[in-house]
Amino acid sequence: MNNPTIDRNQIESMVRAAIRGASGATGQCTGAAVADQPPGWVDGKPNLRVSISARHCHLTDEHVETLFGPGSVLEPEKDLYQDGFYAAKQTVMVVGPRRRMLPNVRVLGPTRGASQVELAFTDSISLGIDAPVRHSGKIDGTPGCVLVGPAGTVQLDQGVIRAARHVHMNFADAEHFGVQNGDMMNLIVRSPDCGVVFEDVLVRADEAAKLEVHIDTDEGNACHLDAATEIKLVRQGGGACGCGG
Amino acid sequence: MNNPTIDRNQIESMVRAAIRGASGATGQCTGAAVADQPPGWVDGKPNLRVSISARHCHLTDEHVETLFGPGSVLEPEKDLYQDGFYAAKQTVMVVGPRRRMLPNVRVLGPTRGASQVELAFTDSISLGIDAPVRHSGKIDGTPGCVLVGPAGTVQLDQGVIRAARHVHMNFADAEHFGVQNGDMMNLIVRSPDCGVVFEDVLVRADEAAKLEVHIDTDEGNACHLDAATEIKLVRQGGGACGCGG
Repeated sequence: MNNPTIDRNQIESMVRAAIRGASGATGQCTGAAVADQPPGWVDGKPNLRVSISARHCHLTDEHVETLFGPGSVLEPEKDLYQDGFYAAKQTVMVVGPRRRMLPNVRVLGPTRGASQVELAFTDSISLGIDAPVRHSGKIDGTPGCVLVGPAGTVQLDQGVIRAARHVHMNFADAEHFGVQNGDMMNLIVRSPDCGVVFEDVLVRADEAAKLEVHIDTDEGNACHLDAATEIKLVRQGGGACGCGG
Repeated sequence: MNNPTIDRNQIESMVRAAIRGASGATGQCTGAAVADQPPGWVDGKPNLRVSISARHCHLTDEHVETLFGPGSVLEPEKDLYQDGFYAAKQTVMVVGPRRRMLPNVRVLGPTRGASQVELAFTDSISLGIDAPVRHSGKIDGTPGCVLVGPAGTVQLDQGVIRAARHVHMNFADAEHFGVQNGDMMNLIVRSPDCGVVFEDVLVRADEAAKLEVHIDTDEGNACHLDAATEIKLVRQGGGACGCGG
């Protein structure tokens, strides 16, 4: 119960399964035809998943050793939905100006070429850092922070962002939705008394990704994702409200 | 700097003024014609304001005396935009299960017939209370909590909600938008990389209200309200995306 991220993701997976009216896992065990499906597809079609990315960070190999000791590597604790990515056992303390801090920010693996801290806006306010909305990796000119691990500290000169909402997909998904890498889409979430249309959902398409929208905790809370009764992903210009306009 | 609510509201007012391209205060001092305008109108038309309601509570007269001492009344500290309503000097501690608490929750006045605590979803998660999305006053069957003041404590058996988004307006505003009390509208907020359409905005129309949408901190953060470049309020069915569909 100490990790709301995992709780929320578990709940969210169950909600998704309930909305789909079928278990994705069952759908993936129906025989040889499955092998011909694009990654993540169920029963011959895209299987939309919406995940709430709680605050987390990405580290370079060098920073892992500084924070956790010489020779340290990230230790996978829980696989993420996208193949090859994981939540590590390791966490770091993120320290902002005026000594405000977030004590246990999860590290995601694998390591990257630049360290980066991804916060929800609520987190950045509580830390006292004015984190800009940026897509992952676009950290030029963003604020820095101090990371504290059990073996050492790292001063990041930049890299604190509020991750812009985006959708991972493979090229078959992209063709299905009529979009290309770099396009923008709208995510429609209908929940009792608090429906939301999220605009500006960036398409990040590649060969291997599974269809998954990433929003942050503020966004997940604003639409009460756990209570959603309908979730749709639509091309921009295809009607943000699903009206076809 | 200890009260982010007031900071955010101040910033938000400036943003609204900038978007309007004119100061509402200046507009309201241009002469005799103003007296004929409906409440809150500027230059002969509705003047949309979007306010972030941070967590707060409403109290009964009896609970004010229990929490702050016999004979106590709410002391206005800051007027709210709606005439006759104010943030009081008083705050209470809200305590949830497992002794988690929010130390300084602002009391809004005037007093009411039933006490009520309004939280953002983030707050309710941190308190460990599963607060349902409800419109103000609809508290039957909602969770309770304990309120702690300097002079005593109150056990609320119910009344903890996540306030559903809504828009206050007068009847002239309602006519302008073609809506009636109880209708639902959509609020469109365009911000760099994080535009949002909030559906399910309940119309609360009366004679005296000024046009003002209330969203909570999660919702304000999800759309980065402070950075908004365009804000529109539209009738449902008039195109959630502003597409006219």
